[in-house]
Amino acid sequence: MQLTFQNLEDLARGAAFLGTGGGGDPYCGRLMVEQAMHDGGVVEIIDLADVPDDALIIPTAMMGAPTVLIEKLPRGDEAILSLRRLEEHLGRKAFATMPIECGGINSTMPLVVGARLDLPVVDADGMGRAFPELQMETFHVYGVPGTPMVLTNEYGDSVLVTTHDNFMMEWLARGITIRMGGAAYIAEYAMDGRTAKRTAVSGTLSLGVTIGRGIRLARQEHRDPFRALIELLKTTPYKFGAIIFEGKVIDVFRRTTEGFAKGRAILESTANYSEQMEIIFQNEHLIARANGKLKAIVPDLICVLDSETAEPITTEAIKYGQRVKVMAVSVPEIMRTPEALAIFGPRAFGLEEEFQPIEKLVEIKVE
Amino acid sequence: MQLTFQNLEDLARGAAFLGTGGGGDPYCGRLMVEQAMHDGGVVEIIDLADVPDDALIIPTAMMGAPTVLIEKLPRGDEAILSLRRLEEHLGRKAFATMPIECGGINSTMPLVVGARLDLPVVDADGMGRAFPELQMETFHVYGVPGTPMVLTNEYGDSVLVTTHDNFMMEWLARGITIRMGGAAYIAEYAMDGRTAKRTAVSGTLSLGVTIGRGIRLARQEHRDPFRALIELLKTTPYKFGAIIFEGKVIDVFRRTTEGFAKGRAILESTANYSEQMEIIFQNEHLIARANGKLKAIVPDLICVLDSETAEPITTEAIKYGQRVKVMAVSVPEIMRTPEALAIFGPRAFGLEEEFQPIEKLVEIKVE
Repeated sequence: MQLTFQNLEDLARGAAFLGTGGGGDPYCGRLMVEQAMHDGGVVEIIDLADVPDDALIIPTAMMGAPTVLIEKLPRGDEAILSLRRLEEHLGRKAFATMPIECGGINSTMPLVVGARLDLPVVDADGMGRAFPELQMETFHVYGVPGTPMVLTNEYGDSVLVTTHDNFMMEWLARGITIRMGGAAYIAEYAMDGRTAKRTAVSGTLSLGVTIGRGIRLARQEHRDPFRALIELLKTTPYKFGAIIFEGKVIDVFRRTTEGFAKGRAILESTANYSEQMEIIFQNEHLIARANGKLKAIVPDLICVLDSETAEPITTEAIKYGQRVKVMAVSVPEIMRTPEALAIFGPRAFGLEEEFQPIEKLVEIKVE
Repeated sequence: MQLTFQNLEDLARGAAFLGTGGGGDPYCGRLMVEQAMHDGGVVEIIDLADVPDDALIIPTAMMGAPTVLIEKLPRGDEAILSLRRLEEHLGRKAFATMPIECGGINSTMPLVVGARLDLPVVDADGMGRAFPELQMETFHVYGVPGTPMVLTNEYGDSVLVTTHDNFMMEWLARGITIRMGGAAYIAEYAMDGRTAKRTAVSGTLSLGVTIGRGIRLARQEHRDPFRALIELLKTTPYKFGAIIFEGKVIDVFRRTTEGFAKGRAILESTANYSEQMEIIFQNEHLIARANGKLKAIVPDLICVLDSETAEPITTEAIKYGQRVKVMAVSVPEIMRTPEALAIFGPRAFGLEEEFQPIEKLVEIKVE
């Protein structure tokens, strides 16, 4: 697949949806890809299955707080420098780059790298959504070392990190990102094609395009974009989607702290003033409770969407007065295994609630 | 010069003196060198003049808060790993290692590396005393890039930092050190012999031995160790020494914060209860004021010594009730140039007072 401007617009919107509030502002990422394409760059997206087993993939991404990204824009070549430096250290050239998460700017950052360096971008990622931390990866769950990794800032300063495990990688890289001003650009989880086929969530760039296109077409054809989305999801590995709340934002508490955007949003129901929903986030939405009752929980997707247009709203953009619908979406089974939940389930975020699949939570309500 | 156990004891004490309260606990460093010597290691200290112009020197050190060091002892091979990884990155073997500061554990850390790797240790350093930050080096003042540098922790995790200037090196490396638990072991300011001859403070390991021996011999021969020290200093580039206060410690405020041990000690005069001295420190002593009046200021040395034995007391060990004499010592002219003062003079620490040489400050008092 060769990316077009239309595809890119769809992808940016779909990535914001899969980002579940996080992943960084997709608009900024879209502009960067457009610029690269205007400069003659071509974005070639390839199937994971088409990557040779022994070919080297070096994923690239932005790391940090989304709240920082919208004030401190990237220069544009930071992730490229990270990839080049990791190549130098490994003594091997990359065959392709790949997203580490499908969500927000991190769906598009590898496209910029691909267009600028004439590298294909693998249609897969290591989260199947967006998560805030570097070890919250299917790569990690299934045994891929994240280091050696490289972080680069807007001055071209770079740091090569090598750690004994991926938790220490996250810990050190987060500290470095904070000192780089809250946003850094990284290359990590370098792996061969064989390993990627075993550990990556496949097809998530295409999925982003599909979701974005679904929302766009529904709007153009004056259909309900929410119903369109729920129908469309049935044909993907993210089978089950449901609106779990409709209302307006009446309070937002948000702090950029420890390298993350952390906080909560309170929504008041349109139907019933006494019903409120609380959504807790750390870059991404983690849990939604209505009047204290669990409505949806990580790793299932919790997407806050404009109630008219279904445009995804990120945690750094959510604000008082917005009319929204909250959609929860089931994730593929590979992301709900005990191994996966240990790494990016509720406990990993200090939440007390156990994981409960959204399709069960919604059924309980319906009964 | 080949280091003996006797030399080493003298050096540890002399290094604590030159550390002006900082540089990390020299006892810990001494034990590490002794262990390396018991294991058959030989410490060969060579003159800077004897290093070939094109030979590679890789200095090694501990970085962090001295308060951390005494609770979290090094495993012993961290600095060795840092040196080896920097060699790997540079694609060259080190001819020798060298201290980056002469003070506390950082006078002895390169001796451990030298003994374990069978590398000579150059009798020189980049501070001529101890300072808390990585750019506070004569190396930096005279144009040597500090990076690429490597930090290693007790797990063998390592980070290679490459920055556009030495301030950014300090900023990123400090953040990494904090995440490594407040203490890390580093290799940095790799340079050839020619550059070291141009930028290093020469002879400071020998000076440490001389100072330590001076204190030891005075004690053994029941002479006044303070008078002995002042006489001895006259024969070195640290010409002028004077006792600027005598009293007991009546208050200590100390915090381990931002990767440093910061605080102040208050002393009450033995001679006059209404006279107090305040000493401000950031790892090292920065300024001494008596009843608000400037008595000594960085980069001149401010050494807090046990009033009986002249044993140097470090900022992490100073405590209520200790009887002490405070000795101030002039530093060589190379450390008082405008270029040097810009990097490690009072302004660099946010102090309001201008630098005033100790020999002037003491004369003013005498008049």
